Amino acid sequence: MKKENVRVIIWGLGAMGGGMADMLLKKKGVDIVGVVGRGAKIGKSIYEFIQTERGDRPDVIIDTYENVITEKAADVVLLCTDSFTRNAFDKIKYCLEKKINVVSSAEEMAYPQAQEPELAAEMDRIAKENGVTVLGTGINPGLIMDLLVVCLTGACIDVDHVTARRVNSLSPFGPAVMHEQGIGTTVEEFKEGAATGKIAGHVGFNESIRMISDALGWKLSGKVEQTMEPIVTNVHRKAPYAEVQPGYVAGCAMKGYGYVDGELKIEMDHPQQIEPETEGTNTGDYVIIKGTPNINMANKPEVPGGIGTIAMCVNMIPHVINAKPGLKTMIDLPVPRAIMGDMRELIEE
Amino acid sequence: MKKENVRVIIWGLGAMGGGMADMLLKKKGVDIVGVVGRGAKIGKSIYEFIQTERGDRPDVIIDTYENVITEKAADVVLLCTDSFTRNAFDKIKYCLEKKINVVSSAEEMAYPQAQEPELAAEMDRIAKENGVTVLGTGINPGLIMDLLVVCLTGACIDVDHVTARRVNSLSPFGPAVMHEQGIGTTVEEFKEGAATGKIAGHVGFNESIRMISDALGWKLSGKVEQTMEPIVTNVHRKAPYAEVQPGYVAGCAMKGYGYVDGELKIEMDHPQQIEPETEGTNTGDYVIIKGTPNINMANKPEVPGGIGTIAMCVNMIPHVINAKPGLKTMIDLPVPRAIMGDMRELIEE
Ligand SMILES: NC(=O)c1ccc[n+]([C@@H]2O[C@H](COP(=O)([O-])OP(=O)(O)OC[C@H]3O[C@@H](n4cnc5c(N)ncnc54)[C@H](O)[C@@H]3O)[C@@H](O)[C@H]2O)c1
Ligand SMILES: NC(=O)c1ccc[n+]([C@@H]2O[C@H](COP(=O)([O-])OP(=O)(O)OC[C@H]3O[C@@H](n4cnc5c(N)ncnc54)[C@H](O)[C@@H]3O)[C@@H](O)[C@H]2O)c1
Repeated sequence: MKKENVRVIIWGLGAMGGGMADMLLKKKGVDIVGVVGRGAKIGKSIYEFIQTERGDRPDVIIDTYENVITEKAADVVLLCTDSFTRNAFDKIKYCLEKKINVVSSAEEMAYPQAQEPELAAEMDRIAKENGVTVLGTGINPGLIMDLLVVCLTGACIDVDHVTARRVNSLSPFGPAVMHEQGIGTTVEEFKEGAATGKIAGHVGFNESIRMISDALGWKLSGKVEQTMEPIVTNVHRKAPYAEVQPGYVAGCAMKGYGYVDGELKIEMDHPQQIEPETEGTNTGDYVIIKGTPNINMANKPEVPGGIGTIAMCVNMIPHVINAKPGLKTMIDLPVPRAIMGDMRELIEE
Repeated sequence: MKKENVRVIIWGLGAMGGGMADMLLKKKGVDIVGVVGRGAKIGKSIYEFIQTERGDRPDVIIDTYENVITEKAADVVLLCTDSFTRNAFDKIKYCLEKKINVVSSAEEMAYPQAQEPELAAEMDRIAKENGVTVLGTGINPGLIMDLLVVCLTGACIDVDHVTARRVNSLSPFGPAVMHEQGIGTTVEEFKEGAATGKIAGHVGFNESIRMISDALGWKLSGKVEQTMEPIVTNVHRKAPYAEVQPGYVAGCAMKGYGYVDGELKIEMDHPQQIEPETEGTNTGDYVIIKGTPNINMANKPEVPGGIGTIAMCVNMIPHVINAKPGLKTMIDLPVPRAIMGDMRELIEE
């Protein structure tokens, strides 16, 4: 057991970073020792941007990364700024070189070997040089469409085919997500946006499929294939940050395919939309394994993406502190778990 | 990657050990280098007792433990002889002192700290002294009512209460299991057998509840409580190894309760019976977490216990070889996974 509280820095106080701050403030044996922001947030109290009331807690003032991330200033940085490894890379490097472990919520960082093998090797090298660890995690990628699948194959003698399906509601999300998913566009705008990359949809199939295939020892025989289709609504749908008329796009349905020796082995099916129940869609997470034995798992409704990502990043802190130095992924570390006790008790000396 | 094949010894060639032999013979990069049996099996070929045809494989002759388990004779022993730590202990000690890792299918070994803390400490000490690792695993305890629960709490900010439910069929099992579960007895005989311990029912609630509570950082405030009730059939039921008339016992329903600060936090619900569908019972595995967020997982039908245990024990071999020396449990190691490639690729040098 660690004697002093675990020290955490949050970099990026948006929806995820803010939620992690709220979560950490409720936990025992852990302190938020710094928060990195940018622009107008700098110099302000974190309590202006999160749900928790300050009460008689010491204040935490948002500052620049140069001021906050100094050598060994924390045990871990929760990096909640980016989706792509390429964009997160310099920030991760900076933290690692200050000898601080990193947990990143960037989707691509859940398995950076998939899309950015060179940067992954570089992060591994830098982390090892500095005796610290870097992990990417989140709800998806990070758990629902990959780690949970892997875990369930543990009960299998053989696996022939895997399907991970996540049917979820986008209603709780903000304007940025509505935009990325093409909510409210016409079918034509959606198709154009998908073609130009303006509508990004879900980022993570490459990562999830590689995590599964590497875990099982399957070698992918080609690139991960992806499709993206608009979910056109027949009824009026209204969520806090979007309102969609019949005939317009209320969601984005993505599929992903991983091939081994030319054979389709791993399928991802991820339709995301606002107010799915208005047209009778029941949300849920599904893992369907064809093998010995078959597995047919459903979690209904789906684990909500925001809360789930906040929880996963915070819950992995002890595992990341305890891990051997280097770049780790969810399949390298012990299973995630909720932290209901004192976080210090989870830290190995 | 390891150069030579992973070398496995199986101790106890019953239903589980035999199934593991069949599984290993289908896998790449691993060899069965010895099998320990007793009585009339000694001196015979393993191929007389397993499903797989010998073909042109070299033969493996069943022998005594003294002859098979010599120093570093294998990378791992799969010990499939016992349910209770107390009975497995001397065998485990013997293997560890020969500097061989151990995976045990004994239910209590899934978390020996729960019922045998002193033996657990002793095994940890011996394993460390000899630079090897010992793990207990299986389908339940080992995955369904514990590790899977823990893994799903990883998506939770807070957990208030956990229920693990496993509704399974006993039809595939043999006479020993029918006996242990009281199948075919009268209600009176069942109650007497339960009182005297002759009808043991499921072994594992203590282990599963402690694994969950330790993983989450909950301190149990008292002993795990258990109840055991007969499942009396209203219809004629017939399975390969049992036939039960209406009014007799076709199953054994167990419940387990774990308390934290006097409050019920962890519930186990495990009704096991032959031919459950005859009275409309749908089998399945369920994890119900009350927390932030709620989780409501179902896997239908249940993962079959025999196949699942065979798979779990074999699939954990690489993790056990790679682990730091000592006694480990499923919450200490990376998630289990099916092995579809060469086992040597999973071994760290
Ligand atoms: N893996 C998953 O399951 C998962 C789930 C949710 C979110 N994510 C990803 O996590 C990231 C964060 O998500 P979010 O919902 O909090 O986004 P957000 O837009 O609400 O917040 C991001 C915050 O980071 C800040 N920021 C960005 N660059 C910065 C910099 N250089 N210095 C300081 N602050 C900076 C922004 O100002 C903003 O406050 C996103 O890229 C998102 O896609 C992944
Ligand atoms: N954790 C789980 O989920 C789980 C699941 C299935 C079985 N198990 C347990 O695993 C154990 C094995 O199960 P099984 O179905 O194979 O039982 P089994 O009775 O079919 O086989 C046990 C075998 O071990 C042999 N054996 C016993 N002591 C021995 C000794 N000293 N030397 C050599 N051989 C010996 C027996 O002769 C027999 O062949 C049981 O105790 C069972 O309860 C656990």
